Formats: sequence, C-alpha cells, structure tokens
Amino acid sequence: MAQDDRPLLARADSQDSYREANEEDALLTGQATDKPEPSQWKKYRETVLSLYSILATIAIVALAIVVNHESKRAHAKGPGKGWGQDGKPTGKRNLIFMVSDGMGPASLSMTRSFRQFTELLPIDDVLVLDEHLIGSSRTRSSNSLITDSAAGATAFSCGMKSYNGAISVLPDHTPCGTVLEAAKKAGYMTGLVVTTRLTDATPACFAAHVNSRAYEDIIAEQMIGNYPLGQVVDVLIGGGRCHFLPNTTEGSCRSDDTDVVKMAKDKFGYNYIDNRQDFDNLQARGGVKLPLLALMADGDVPYEIDRVHVNDVYPSEAEMAQLALSALEAATKDSDSKGFFLMIEGSRIDHAGHGNDPAAQVHEVLAHGKTFATVLDFIENTDIPTVLVGTSDHETGGLALGRQLGVAYPIYAWYPEILANASHSASYLSHKYADYLGSDAGQKASRKQKAKYIRHELLEHDFGVYDVLDEEIDSIIDATIFWPPSYIFAEMISQRAQIGWSTHGHTAVDVNIYASDPHHARPLIGNHENIEVGKFLADFLDVDVSEVTKELVEKGTKTHDVASESMNFAWMGPVQPLNSHQVAVEETLWAEALREGHALEVDVHARL
Amino acid sequence: MAQDDRPLLARADSQDSYREANEEDALLTGQATDKPEPSQWKKYRETVLSLYSILATIAIVALAIVVNHESKRAHAKGPGKGWGQDGKPTGKRNLIFMVSDGMGPASLSMTRSFRQFTELLPIDDVLVLDEHLIGSSRTRSSNSLITDSAAGATAFSCGMKSYNGAISVLPDHTPCGTVLEAAKKAGYMTGLVVTTRLTDATPACFAAHVNSRAYEDIIAEQMIGNYPLGQVVDVLIGGGRCHFLPNTTEGSCRSDDTDVVKMAKDKFGYNYIDNRQDFDNLQARGGVKLPLLALMADGDVPYEIDRVHVNDVYPSEAEMAQLALSALEAATKDSDSKGFFLMIEGSRIDHAGHGNDPAAQVHEVLAHGKTFATVLDFIENTDIPTVLVGTSDHETGGLALGRQLGVAYPIYAWYPEILANASHSASYLSHKYADYLGSDAGQKASRKQKAKYIRHELLEHDFGVYDVLDEEIDSIIDATIFWPPSYIFAEMISQRAQIGWSTHGHTAVDVNIYASDPHHARPLIGNHENIEVGKFLADFLDVDVSEVTKELVEKGTKTHDVASESMNFAWMGPVQPLNSHQVAVEETLWAEALREGHALEVDVHARL
Repeated sequence: MAQDDRPLLARADSQDSYREANEEDALLTGQATDKPEPSQWKKYRETVLSLYSILATIAIVALAIVVNHESKRAHAKGPGKGWGQDGKPTGKRNLIFMVSDGMGPASLSMTRSFRQFTELLPIDDVLVLDEHLIGSSRTRSSNSLITDSAAGATAFSCGMKSYNGAISVLPDHTPCGTVLEAAKKAGYMTGLVVTTRLTDATPACFAAHVNSRAYEDIIAEQMIGNYPLGQVVDVLIGGGRCHFLPNTTEGSCRSDDTDVVKMAKDKFGYNYIDNRQDFDNLQARGGVKLPLLALMADGDVPYEIDRVHVNDVYPSEAEMAQLALSALEAATKDSDSKGFFLMIEGSRIDHAGHGNDPAAQVHEVLAHGKTFATVLDFIENTDIPTVLVGTSDHETGGLALGRQLGVAYPIYAWYPEILANASHSASYLSHKYADYLGSDAGQKASRKQKAKYIRHELLEHDFGVYDVLDEEIDSIIDATIFWPPSYIFAEMISQRAQIGWSTHGHTAVDVNIYASDPHHARPLIGNHENIEVGKFLADFLDVDVSEVTKELVEKGTKTHDVASESMNFAWMGPVQPLNSHQVAVEETLWAEALREGHALEVDVHARL
Repeated sequence: MAQDDRPLLARADSQDSYREANEEDALLTGQATDKPEPSQWKKYRETVLSLYSILATIAIVALAIVVNHESKRAHAKGPGKGWGQDGKPTGKRNLIFMVSDGMGPASLSMTRSFRQFTELLPIDDVLVLDEHLIGSSRTRSSNSLITDSAAGATAFSCGMKSYNGAISVLPDHTPCGTVLEAAKKAGYMTGLVVTTRLTDATPACFAAHVNSRAYEDIIAEQMIGNYPLGQVVDVLIGGGRCHFLPNTTEGSCRSDDTDVVKMAKDKFGYNYIDNRQDFDNLQARGGVKLPLLALMADGDVPYEIDRVHVNDVYPSEAEMAQLALSALEAATKDSDSKGFFLMIEGSRIDHAGHGNDPAAQVHEVLAHGKTFATVLDFIENTDIPTVLVGTSDHETGGLALGRQLGVAYPIYAWYPEILANASHSASYLSHKYADYLGSDAGQKASRKQKAKYIRHELLEHDFGVYDVLDEEIDSIIDATIFWPPSYIFAEMISQRAQIGWSTHGHTAVDVNIYASDPHHARPLIGNHENIEVGKFLADFLDVDVSEVTKELVEKGTKTHDVASESMNFAWMGPVQPLNSHQVAVEETLWAEALREGHALEVDVHARL
C-alpha cells in the first residue's frame, strides 16, 4: 500500500506479519474479511467509513436526546445545590431539631380548631405543623411503655433506649455519647434553646450525663463544660437560672454554693446574659460572641398565654430560636465544611398537659408552630443545605377532644370559645390566689370574701368564666396540695370546653414527626421507634456517637476517683434503685417541681 | 474529481454551482473552508472522517453508559408493569379501601404493646398497620368538630363534608354520588364487607342516600338496588340481617313487612346466604355467583374476642374479606380494562370504644390488622395494579394509654396482662348476666347469690379478674340503664390496666392513614382533610362522582312523587331538624342500639 493512500490513523500492518491488516482484523474480530478486489479497496473503505460516520452521528443525536430527557427528569425530582441523590447534603450542612415536649396528636386537633375559631378561618385551615407531617414515633423507654422526658430525649440524643429518668446514661449506668457532643467534636457549632430550665431533662440529654434527671445542679455544671468532654454547647438559651447561681445568692435553687455562672464565664469563656434588655441588645448589635449562656428566667419562661403580658421581661420561644439561628449562622459562615446543630424545645406544651390546662396548651402549641415557621424561613433564606426535623418525646395528659360529663350520651361538640376567653393559665391564677392569701387582705379575709375574690378577680377577670358554681368556689377554698387550686381551675375550663384528660402524667400514644421537607428526612417517613429519630440526627450530620461514648468512658473513668466498681462514673451522680413505683415517686417530685406556685400553695395551706 | 476518487455518499457538487462543494459547505455552515492544496485533499478528507468515526464511537460508548445508568436509576424508582410515572395505574386496576371505624392513634399503641406482651415479642415489634402508615386524616364534619360515622363515611364516599347523621346526602339534603356508584357505572365490580350491620352508617354511605343514618330499613332496600340507580353492589357481606327480614318473621327488626331478602333475590338477582356452612361452601366451591348478599348475623358479627368461641357460626373479618377478594377477582378476570372496588370495614373497633372496653378493642384491631395482611397478600399475588388504602372515620372513646386513678401522681405504667386475662368482652358478660337474671335461678336469686354469680361466673370465669371489690359487685347489681353493667365491667378492666377513656362517644383527634405502598398513594402522604381520602379513591379509579350526583338528582326527582319542594327526594326519608343537641339525641339512640344486650338489660331491670 502506497504511503499516500494509507488512511491516517488506520492500524499499521504488523511488521512481522505475512497477513494484511484486514486479515488480521478478521482474525481478531472473528469476522470474515470478505476481501475486496484491490481495485475496489479504497472505495470500499471510504464507503464504510462514511456510512459509519453517518450512523454514528444519528446515534449520538438520538442518545443525546435521551440523555437530555433523562437528565431533565432527574433534575425535576433531583436534589438541589449541595444535596446528594440520597437526600443527604454532600458538604456543609445545618440541622435544627425541634422537640414539642408532651404534644400528642390531640393537641394538634385542639389547637387547629382553636385557631380557626379565634382567627375566623375556614374549617379546613391548618397549622404550619400540619403541612409538615411526615410520620409518627413510638415513644416507649427501656423500662416502661410510658416514657418520661429523660428516656425520651436520650433516645434522640444517643439513639438508644434507656430507663425513665436517665440523662444520656444507658441502663447499665454507663454514659452514651450524644449527637450534640459528636457534632461539636466533628467541628459543628451547637446550640440548645428551651422555654423551661436548661437543666431539665430534654436539653440536659444533649450535653450532660447523670443517672437521674433530678440532679439538676450537676447538670448545670456539665452543660457549660465542667465534665469529661469540656465545653460543647456554643449557644445556651432558656430558663433555669436558679440552678446556675450559688445558694448564697437570692434566686438560687442550688443545694451548694457553686457559682456556675462564674465558672461558665471564667473557665469556659461564656458570654453571659440574664435579662430581656441584654437579649435585645445582643440581637440589635448583630454579632453575638460565642459561647453564649442566656438564662432568661429563674425557672421556666412563663406560659405563652401569660408571657404576652410580660413581653418586656421574657422573650418568646421564636425570639430565642431566632437569636440562636443568627448567632450560629454567623459563627459558621466562614467554614467551608461545617454548619451547626441546634435543638429547640417547646418545653411547656408538656407542662400545660401536666396541669390539664387546655387554654395554656393551645398557646404553647401556637408558639411552637411560630418557632417552626421561623426556622422554615431561615431554611428558605440560607444557601447551606439545612433540615428541620421535629417530634415529641411523648404525650402528656391523655388529652381527648371530646368528653362525657355525665351519664347522658355526650353531645358531639367542643367549645373553643371557652379557651379563647381565658387570658391567663390556671397556673397563673393559682399563683395570684396564693399571693392574695399571703397578703394582708387575704389573711384577714372571711370565707365569703375569699369566694368573692376567686369569683371576680380570678375566674371572671383572668379566666373569662362567668357561670361559676358555688361548689366550684368551695372546692378551691378547700383545696389541698394533693389536688391544688391549679388543677381545679384547669378542670373548670376543660369541663366547660368538653375536653377530656386521663392523667396529670404522660401517656403512650405515638407522637407526630415533622420535617421541613420530606425528601430531606426520607428515613423518618412513616411510623418509627423514637431511637430512629436519634439515628437520623447523627446520620444527617455524618457523625458517630459511639466514638464519643468511647471518649466518655475513657476520660470519665480515668479522670475521676473510683469509689467502687458501680461508681466508675461518680461524676454522673449516684445510681437510683429502679422499679416502676420508684419511677413514679421520682416523677411525682419532678411533676411537683414543675407545678408553678406549688411551693407557694404549700406555704399558704400550711398557714391556713 | 475522478469518479473513482469521490467518496461514496459525499454530497454531490451542485450542478449549477460555480463553487466547489466544500466552499458551499462553508457558506452553509459559516465555517471557513481552510481550503487545502489539491494534492492533500484526499488524505485530509480521510483523516477527518477517521477521526470523526473514532470520536463518534467514544461518544456513543459514553452516552450508552450514561443512558444505561439513567435507565437503571429510573427503573429503581420507577413504576412496575401497568403503573404510570404518576404512581397511578395506566389500565385495569383494583382498589381496596379499609375503614378502621373508631380507631385512633392510641388504639395502635395499646394493641402493639398488648401483642408484644401476649406473643413474647421484643419491645420494638410492630403491627402490620404500623409498617404501612403514610399520614393522618382530619375528621371534622360540616357541622361539628367531632364527626359521626355517617358524615365520616360521606367524606370518603362522596369526597364532600356533610352533617353528622348524613348518609351520602349533602347539607342541603340533596344526594351526592359515591365512589362505589361511579365505579359500578364505569364498569368496575364492587363490594362491601363489614363486621357490623350492612345498614350501618359506613357501608350505607357507599350505596344508599338517606337524610338520617337511623333509616336503616330504607338503607337495606337501597343497598340491594331498590333506589334510583338500581343494583350497584356486587358483593355484600356482613351483619344486619334483621333489617332485611319482614317484621312478620322471627329475627326481624324492621318496622314493616317488606321482605328485602326476597326482593334482593327476585328483583335484583342476588345469590343469598345467611349462615357459616353456606359461607364455607361458597369458598370451597370456588366460583361465587354474583351479585352476592351474605348476611352473616342478625345484628353485628360478635366481637373477635367472643367470636373465636363461636367460630363455627360466624366468619372472621379476614375470612369475609378473603371471600370478597376471590369473588371480585374471579368476576373481573376476563375484563381487559376494569377491576374492582372493595370497601372493608373493621366496624367494631368503634363499638369497643363506645363501650370503653380495651380487651375487646385490642382483638378488634388485631383482627383488622389480619385483614389488612390478607389484602396485602392478595396484592402481592395479583398481576393487576392494586392499591390498598386504609383510614379511620374518627376516634371513639378518648382512649389514653395512661391513667391517673387517684390524687397521687400516676405510675408510668399500664398492664397488658389485665387485657390478656379477659376471654370475653364486657358486652358478652352483660348479655350473660341478663340471661342469668332472666333465668329461673336468677329470678329466685338473693342479692348474695347474685353477687356470687357475678364474682365467679362472670368476672373470674370470663374476665380473669380475681381482685374484685364488694363495691364493684354492688354497683353492678344496682346498675341502671343509664350506666349499664357493660360500662361497669369495662371500667373494671380499664382501671386495672390503667387505661383512660374520656367519653362513650367520639372524639376529634386526627386518625391514621395507611397504604399498601406509599408510592401508589402519594397524594395521601402527610396530614389531610378526610374528603381528600374520598377524592383519592375516585381519582385512583378514574371515575367522576359528580356525574352520578347528576343522575341521582335527575332520576331521584323525576321518578318519585314530589310531596313538597323540600321533599324532592322523598325516597331519602324525612329531613331531621339539625342542631347539636338533636345530633346528640340521635347519637344516643344509635349508641344504645349498638350496646349489645341493652334491650335485655332494659327488660331485666324493668322486671327487677
């Protein structure tokens, strides 16, 4: 073959071959050579090449159309910027976990209907939470079908079942690493926002390890960093200031004189605030120096129904959440790889359930919904892949939207106007009543004068109840600490609204799971064990809580005195005997501590 | 260019052109010709062609890989045979709709935990229903936050809100076409399977139109075809025989002497059976002649907890569902385009709720779960695209898994063993007690003898309760029709198990939505108004209920006497005055009718 006639890029004949290239091709491919006459060879080659080029072009165009189509289809369903095909982010990410403590399914029906009534909305109007329902959670603990908030939050924080009362401690009384601790170790910024005490079970489970939720003094110290892992929470906003102040100070509820606020500032570098003005100034100034410890109330932040009257003293759940979001966003804006983890608890939905107070509860659920909407807004406006997941730890109160008041078959109705008429919680009335009884006027008051005060100053003025029965007033005057006035006030509203409660404690109904976008929380669609929620949190952040558990066990054992084998982790407080009765007794103490004004009532009744 | 040198399939020079082809190409494509020297032309052409062929080959291989990958991805997520991209079938399809009447979220927690206890399963074992949860339904009716089953089922059948008591009739008392009627008109086969009376609200709403659910005699006639649309239900299996028999016959509860069974057979061609032996024979024979009317009980089929003792008399919910599935599958197997629509109701979960009987309820929920599994098996084994969707119309009883029995803070526990010890329902005990009181022995019995009978023959023998208090026995002996023995029996179990109830009526909590496969019921994922469930049913079957409404209005008005304007639809029975008290009174009547043994108790107490 003449050099000039040889096609460029054609395979050269083998130098040591006696065959022509096309014969070799035939041997290699198994195709017959169908060897053309030498005179026709060039034309044949060009024919094949040209035909092939045309067919290849058609094939490319066809395939390109298919690819384009498939790609559009994939794009239509597919992830946005920073999201992988599996619904998880590929790089930097934020996670907000919202806990609606004690909110069961009936709380939603009640609040939805209440809002329709008070805001004159159509009967198919829904709450922002309703629009984000993706499933439900089974709530039992390791030792009871009915969980408490400690075991409930341990399921979220560690992704493990434990006993009622356990603060991120397993049934064998060894600590379990939490998602917040693992996130911090992995480089995320972290935050906890609550409307109850920061030392209460739910927030405690994310950054403390103790054998009983009752050890709130120890919890306060651990949460600011005084435990084997050091400082892990960058934003702490909520109530419970009394557990951070030494018992030598007014407003303390500690049993010792440890100044946890001082420790937080001096040892762990916390920026500390304790009042609304400083809170607002922080927001106004923009940049918040972290870590931040904001203790906005001695104990609980007041119920939303009461807080709106003292808005200049206490920020709302949504305001506290907004501050945390802004601070954490700013603090992570320069990181290429790590965002933040924030837990926000609507803590007092549970308290309203414990108090069987439906008017207080609807406002708590609405406030939590407003916070949920605030977080959705944040997600809408950030470029960082961010997910909000929300759920409850359990239901409280056995709430039912329907109640039979006598032997007659019940009317199928409830009366939202009864809740709308109340401008304060039953707890507030109880406080006010105790203050009255302790005042000069109250101490001098006759039974008749007390009755008048209860009827006009409490029930009419603060509760909007005008059809009060004498027996009801008698029962309030004659109330004991076992069935305090707050229970009776709440029951008056519940009866009139035809709302039922089965207990002042918790119940075992499944609770709802919510997400900002179901596609980003796919593993939680449907019905799940509560520990699956905890596992989702760690998976989403791509962190390993078991590594933290190892670190806790190692540092926790070595760096502290070992009194006995069972006290390997003395810093977690003594182990309490565990049986259901004991659990109940512990719960009684916690519940009574929760019941605002209870101490006052005890005093008052002791005086009476 | 010599003929032999010209590449085959090369574009020929334009005959009337003074330019060469490559110059024309340049003009057409806008590319410079970069005209080579004539001596190099041939080589250049072959170089380009060869390069192009190679690049094209690479491109094809790359695109083929992409297409293959995309296709696999699409296949992984994509629909199966007979399913479209939108999750809907493209051709022939079946739809099974399951109603768990009165089953609220707490019923699931209770039944799940009961099953774990009795079957020694781990604490994270779940019910088949749990595995298929996809969302929840808001249940309110047009006139009450708390719906009854009639308005609840009208939401499913017509996809419209109506008033409590309405059987597929709108608030303006005009009939609304149902999904079953529309399915029948479109060529589907249809079926209704219930464990209560076929004339009760839920089944009635699919194939009858009356102004009040109380008109069960009229409903019986309409359901077999004696109404403007004629025969529309191909399979009717359930209880309620007494409404089909003339009042001249034993076992009738009709107010007139119409023989609806005869009418069904003679006028509408129904194959009629009324006993277990014929039921079993039908199954054994395989081919079931349709339409089928199977009236398996005078009133309700017994509660599952009682039925297992009389299994030779009454088939289970799952057995009735299996018969309907087989019959409808066989009847549609030769159709290329139309399958069937079947509604199956676990009717008596609701009755156990009305009776506040937790032991009866767990067995009802388990029986409904077994039926659900039966339908899943059917779906697994059919080639026809088939979907199962399940939900409740409302919750009944205000069930709570947690109960405070005194002023002391409640223990966080419940006791499934109490329910497991009961071998019969409270209703059964109530019946048995009434029979005893009516017997010779009972009529002669002293108070002490009655107490002995109640303690040993009822509470110990049938209920497994051995720690009976004398006060409890007294309350049973002294019971009135307003708070009958059945309530007291049920309360004894509920208290001991620490299960709470707020009412003997319904409540307004959202209820669960289930599906065989979430992808095939996508529009129902999340929280929805109950009418959206109804709309899904019609959409899935691709039928238009509004066409049926038109037909009903036209035929219903023209073919019947018009007494007055408000009686345009006299065949739907008189309009009842509507207010919430009236609704309550109506509900009282229905509830009392539901309460088995009530009539007997009235007799007995009248005798006492």
